[in-house]
This record gives sequence, C-alpha cells and structure tokens, in this order.
Amino acid sequence: MRIYFTFEPRLELREPLVEEFPQVDFVFESSLSTEELQKADVLVTYGEDLNEDILQYATKLKWIFVASAGVEKMPAQAIADREILVSNVRGIHKTPMAESMLAHILAIKRALPWMYEQQKKSEWSKKGKQTELRDSTALILGPGAIGSEVGRLLQAFGVATIGCNRSGKEAPYMDVMVSFDKLLEALPKADIVISVLPKTTETTHLWNEEHFKVMKNNAIFMNFGRGNLVDEKVLIQAIKADEIGYAVLDVFEQEPLAANSPLWTLPNVIVSPHISSHSSRYVERSLNIFKPSLIKWLNGDIDLENIMDLSRGY
Amino acid sequence: MRIYFTFEPRLELREPLVEEFPQVDFVFESSLSTEELQKADVLVTYGEDLNEDILQYATKLKWIFVASAGVEKMPAQAIADREILVSNVRGIHKTPMAESMLAHILAIKRALPWMYEQQKKSEWSKKGKQTELRDSTALILGPGAIGSEVGRLLQAFGVATIGCNRSGKEAPYMDVMVSFDKLLEALPKADIVISVLPKTTETTHLWNEEHFKVMKNNAIFMNFGRGNLVDEKVLIQAIKADEIGYAVLDVFEQEPLAANSPLWTLPNVIVSPHISSHSSRYVERSLNIFKPSLIKWLNGDIDLENIMDLSRGY
Repeated sequence: MRIYFTFEPRLELREPLVEEFPQVDFVFESSLSTEELQKADVLVTYGEDLNEDILQYATKLKWIFVASAGVEKMPAQAIADREILVSNVRGIHKTPMAESMLAHILAIKRALPWMYEQQKKSEWSKKGKQTELRDSTALILGPGAIGSEVGRLLQAFGVATIGCNRSGKEAPYMDVMVSFDKLLEALPKADIVISVLPKTTETTHLWNEEHFKVMKNNAIFMNFGRGNLVDEKVLIQAIKADEIGYAVLDVFEQEPLAANSPLWTLPNVIVSPHISSHSSRYVERSLNIFKPSLIKWLNGDIDLENIMDLSRGY
Repeated sequence: MRIYFTFEPRLELREPLVEEFPQVDFVFESSLSTEELQKADVLVTYGEDLNEDILQYATKLKWIFVASAGVEKMPAQAIADREILVSNVRGIHKTPMAESMLAHILAIKRALPWMYEQQKKSEWSKKGKQTELRDSTALILGPGAIGSEVGRLLQAFGVATIGCNRSGKEAPYMDVMVSFDKLLEALPKADIVISVLPKTTETTHLWNEEHFKVMKNNAIFMNFGRGNLVDEKVLIQAIKADEIGYAVLDVFEQEPLAANSPLWTLPNVIVSPHISSHSSRYVERSLNIFKPSLIKWLNGDIDLENIMDLSRGY
C-alpha cells in the first residue's frame, strides 16, 4: 500500500502518521510527479495538480483524498471512468470561518479598531463606542455547515438567530427560519446579517438596494459566501448613504479586490482578503479527517467519510 | 413613593419606566441635590455622590439602588446606622467583559490587527498568521461571575478550561480546578491565561518571573482583574524575552498608564484602557436589574436582588 502526498505536512504531523500506519509506504513530495503517481494506490492532494493527461499515469490509483473543499479543477469524468473513489475534507472550513466571523463581530461591538488606533498614539482614552453582542438578532443567509456553526456560537452569546434559505426548511442552531421570499420582512429585525451563500445563478445579485434600505442603519452586513451576492456599486452606495452601520467583506465580485476600490478606504468597511477560512491548523485538521478513512480503507471498508460525487461537484 | 435618580437615563429608557410604574413619582437629575434627596424614598445612584454629610438630608430614604458594582466611596457606617437597604448591579460587568476578552482572543487568533494594517495599505495579502481558538486550553485565575462567564463562552469554542483559585474548589464552566499553589504545574498546558482576580494583599505580585517562564512561548497572557497582580517590570521583561506570545492588558499598576510606558509600543501587547466593562447598554442593563426589585419593593417585599453588606464591602 503506497500513499502519495503531493504536499508536505510539517514534520510533527508527518511523523505520527508514518508511525501509526507502519503497513503503509508514505511518499511526501512538494508537487506531483508522474513517476510517483504511477506507483500510488492512494493520492492525497489539494486537488489542483490533476488533469486528464496526468491521470493516465495513475494506473494503480483507487482513492483520491482531496485536502480541500472544492473540486472545480479536477478532471471529473476521467476520475469517474477509472472508478477512483474521491473523498474530501468537507466541513473543515467551518471552525476557522465561524471564528473569523465572531472575531469581526466582537471586535466591532467592543471597539477594537478604535482601541488599536488609540494605542498607536499612546493615548489613554475611555471614549470608544462599545456595545454588547448579547440580545442582538442575527440573520444567516444559507445556514449550512458553516452558517449553522456561526449560529451555534452566536446563540452561546445570547444572540437570536434567523436562518434564511430557499425553502425556509429547518436548519441547526436557527431559532427561526424564513424562506428567501420572506427575507425583506425579516431583515428589519436583524442587527447582524451574514451571508455564507454559495455562487449559483439564483444567488447572483439576490441582494439589492431594497435589502439595504430595510436594514437597521446600525446593523452589520457580512458577506462570507461569494461576491456575486450583491452588485458592489449597490453595496458602496448603501454604505455611503449610512443605510448600514458596518460591512465586513471576505469575498468580492473581483478578487483580488482592485487597489482603487472604494471599499479599502470607506469608513466602517472591513476588507478580509478571502482568508476567513485560513488556518495554520489546516493540514492537521485534514489529517484528522484522513486518518479514520485510512483505517477503514486498510480494513477493506470503502464507506469513507465525505465521499464525493464529482459529476455533481460536491 | 418618590424615586430619585441622580443620573439621567436616555429618554427611551426613562419613558417605559415611568409608564410601567404610574404609582411612583420619578425624579431624574444629572447630579445630586440635597433638596431632592430630602423628599426621596428611594435613591438610584452610581454611588459616588454620597457622603456622611449629604446623607443627613436623606430623612425619608429607605433604599439605595447603586447602579455600579463597587461601593468603596459610600459612607458605609452612616448608611448602616440609618438602616437604609442597599442593593447594586452585581454581575452587570460579566457580559461586556467576557465579550471583550473573547473579542481580543479571537482578534489575535484570526490576525485582525494585521488585517486592519493591510487594509490601510489597500493591500490584498493572504499572508496573515491565522490560527484557531478551538482545542486550545485556557487557564482562568479567579473564576467568579466574570471568569465563569468567559469560561462558558470559551467552552462553546471548544476550549478546555482550567480554573484556579485559592482553595481549588469547583467553579462553573471549569473543566478542571487547581489551587493557587498548583498554578506553576498547570501553566505549561495553557494557551491562554486570563486573570480576573481582585486586588487583595494575597494577589499583589502573586504572579512573578517564574510564571512567565513556564508558560508556552506562544501563549496569550490577559490581565482583566487588577494591576497589582504582577510587577510591570517583570511583565515587560517577559514580553521582551519572548517568553509569551501576546499580552492583553485592561488593568495596570498605575492608571492611566503613563504615556512613556513601554507597554504602549511593545509588539504583541494590547493596551485596553480599563474599559473592558464599558457598554452603551449599561444603564439599560441596570434598569433591568432595578425593575424586578422595584416591583418587590412596591409589594412590601424587601428581599431584593444583590443586597449589599456595606460593612464587608460587597
């Protein structure tokens, strides 16, 4: 059994893996070589180094473990034709992303951006506009794994959660659910609006002028889904017109965000350069998902966690 | 029944109060006048406007509601002699303080100070050193109302909590308890150390060089109790020697912190100018504690919440 990693986990992560599975030959390289691919039974990859041509070398390959959530760049048909099992690290982003969202929300509520500026001036001032998160209401657009995790944390802070999805059907850690077509009615209650919606034709410009107009003018608007949700011109106009209190943006229509975008300099806008899911613990978390699957695999059990149907893209 | 406030809640807080209690004559002033004090049955004060001389005018006074946690400045003996009941807003600080602590911790873990600086340069960079709070261990020195509230929130983030008090006796939301004399043994496990200890002779310089030396060198040290805990020279030395990763300080040996203190400018130090409890919702929260007590009082029930024994100071 030969397992080929096309990235190199840190030594302190590699060593326990090798020790735990003495029956496995592990190969760790910093990129993919066709020579090693030919010999591999299992491939562990971030999913961006495969294409149809390269896959022809993978004559022994039976399982690809993708240490990433997306598979847009993988040769789906070729993998399916060869009956190679693919599993991924679905759900790995929820912890760092939910922590990022809470970090931004609490930083705003407790006036940390102001506090950091005071410190630079060595100025002892108690005049920051601090308020509390408790007893707020948050509306979460797209309460899947990530949205529910942020809902769970918000509830721990005493926040009421309203989930919003297409059908309005129940989701974990949402006190109330509404469907997309009831969004405008629910929005005036929200102190925080968080979108974690994926990019689909349905979500493109789902959010428009009217949505900003019905929001509380001190509410926080957070887009941690995809930049297609709202036309940035509309967003910028709403911020300039003080229709909302704060915007925290992890995603943008065009990434990287152009250096001359007004979003960089508008007051009460936080630009997070699509890094809300980044974490120094990413590889560690991936291996924690990989290991139980590897144990199953070695026992001949192919009912692995997070098996993907590449033809459907998830 | 005449209730005299020596501060003026905002109109939107005053009006519902007056409406809810039509049988009460409310007087709201921005400071204390002896003339009004003479007529008052109940006094609502921040507790800093009373002294023995002024109290002589309070001939009808039966209850003082102190919208503050401390009573150091009140004429304890004179109040006791007149058999005036005193109650306060104990516990009111726990929500804003715990939210402040989580804000600071998450901001550091998710690299917000770095992100804000990048934004000022309109620089799209993904190179921030972001990590996760989940699976960390926090040691909480003095897990009372505030420490337990921060413990509760940390546990929701998947953090293991170690409480530390004099006796080592159980406290809410602490996975493990240790006594002060076992502190040095427990410290090497902690990724975050939070002190919310009060100022007593026992806590003065309870923390010394040795404590910093046994800490993980990437751990966060947070003092949200009192500045007497550690000699600031020792703290500064530990930071300079990279014995800890971050210090977040809400309290100092001398407040305000001198403009020339190295703490303002040392990297990886956050100076919070003793405002972790501040909140725009403070008066609202105080009135939420006041109202149930007022209902009891009007019914002749003097078993109010948070009755204070002034001779003991709490």
